Amino acid sequence: MTEEPPKSHGRLSIRASLKPRDLMDEQPRLKGAWEARIVTLFPDAFPGILGLSLMGKALDMGLWRLETHDLRGFGEGKHRNVDDTPAGGGAGMVLRADVVDAALRTAMQGASTDRARWPVMYLSPRGRPFDQATARRLADCDGVTLLCGRFEGVDQRVLDHWQIEEVSLGDFVLTGGEIAAQALIDATVRLRPGVLGNQASTEEESFSDGLLEHPQYTRPQSWQGADIPEVLTSGNHGAIAKWRHAQAEQITATRRPDLWAKYRSKG
Amino acid sequence: MTEEPPKSHGRLSIRASLKPRDLMDEQPRLKGAWEARIVTLFPDAFPGILGLSLMGKALDMGLWRLETHDLRGFGEGKHRNVDDTPAGGGAGMVLRADVVDAALRTAMQGASTDRARWPVMYLSPRGRPFDQATARRLADCDGVTLLCGRFEGVDQRVLDHWQIEEVSLGDFVLTGGEIAAQALIDATVRLRPGVLGNQASTEEESFSDGLLEHPQYTRPQSWQGADIPEVLTSGNHGAIAKWRHAQAEQITATRRPDLWAKYRSKG
Repeated sequence: MTEEPPKSHGRLSIRASLKPRDLMDEQPRLKGAWEARIVTLFPDAFPGILGLSLMGKALDMGLWRLETHDLRGFGEGKHRNVDDTPAGGGAGMVLRADVVDAALRTAMQGASTDRARWPVMYLSPRGRPFDQATARRLADCDGVTLLCGRFEGVDQRVLDHWQIEEVSLGDFVLTGGEIAAQALIDATVRLRPGVLGNQASTEEESFSDGLLEHPQYTRPQSWQGADIPEVLTSGNHGAIAKWRHAQAEQITATRRPDLWAKYRSKG
Repeated sequence: MTEEPPKSHGRLSIRASLKPRDLMDEQPRLKGAWEARIVTLFPDAFPGILGLSLMGKALDMGLWRLETHDLRGFGEGKHRNVDDTPAGGGAGMVLRADVVDAALRTAMQGASTDRARWPVMYLSPRGRPFDQATARRLADCDGVTLLCGRFEGVDQRVLDHWQIEEVSLGDFVLTGGEIAAQALIDATVRLRPGVLGNQASTEEESFSDGLLEHPQYTRPQSWQGADIPEVLTSGNHGAIAKWRHAQAEQITATRRPDLWAKYRSKG
């Protein structure tokens, strides 16, 4: 194996290990920080947008940690092939089971083998939809390992062997899993303690009560002939809460009959 | 107005205009290339991942074009404030209608005013879900302008005034709209002619027939005691197609009862 050492981001600390030095993954780890480990053909895509803004600050503060493993380094032969043609024919290329397996074995070193603490996920439109409940579940884990697909997909045998959860960002097709991985990480890390300045923000927002959020207004009081709805400037907190709830219900019913039906059935 | 000039990516050509020079947006445009214009507080997040791989190549080839408009440049006063507290109280901050309006007016210069040719979208969990049909619709447009939110949201009045479509990536909350914008652009641009090497790829994939994709296999024939399913190496194309269809149906029924119900009702 001659793969590149993994690239890591975030604050570092040295981890002790009983493994011999030449076999172990020597990267230091910050104790207790939530970790995302990514197996990808495009390690340069990370941290990308996750290095900016709130996520970037949290990364710098050591509140989470990001590590990329370049799939190419686990490829076969002089050209480091990672894929081959689909058995049975068809367009595109399929990532090889043996190559993905080797990358996952390296990426999972030192991670919990309890999948409830550390899930392994493959981002694919075939997966179960990623949602806020999944983000909350991941935020309660120690970390996650994400396999980013490209081409037509991944050999099914390695998905079965690793009991990989297939997770979909939505009913659309991306050129690869990298953007989906960043969305998953962003949605998860913002729920970790200390990442958002104001904890209240994650409690009031969309999906926390099964409804879409009510409309928002701010200064100026009058803009292009339209005023802020009077109730919002009334100072009557009960009336404001009632108006917002009614608006949230109306928007949910109009835009998302599926969420509305679920909300209604909960009573 | 003293905003920064927009940053643009992709091949350039000069566009003629009858507007006076000092009022016009002087950036050159590639004729016929699909355009994404982004209003964001984080212009450095672009092109990001969209500058790599197939998307990056297509950008270099001039098959599409990306332009960012820094919302901060349209902010008020010495500190260039773009947001204010929500009317009626609550956590977080709301983007101001007047500031967003000024940014959109600049970002829309030279764009089609026909929203069917050039939609304006705000990425928010309150929106209608983005899906493959929306990606196809956008790929048939001349371009799209995307408003990336931060904080608690955007003043409703500017959303109404611009007839902005609210679009959601899924039922989860991100720190901002930038990752969602990149997902939307990636899903759309890959459907544009010439971007993917093999056109067949977009026809056989998930959602094109209302089903999730069948499992894939590739060499080696045997891995960790598991063989490629025999039918796939039989050379019997009819049997392969039948097996794949049955697998696609089974996976869809198991993982996505919602899609399965739709598929069945189409009969």
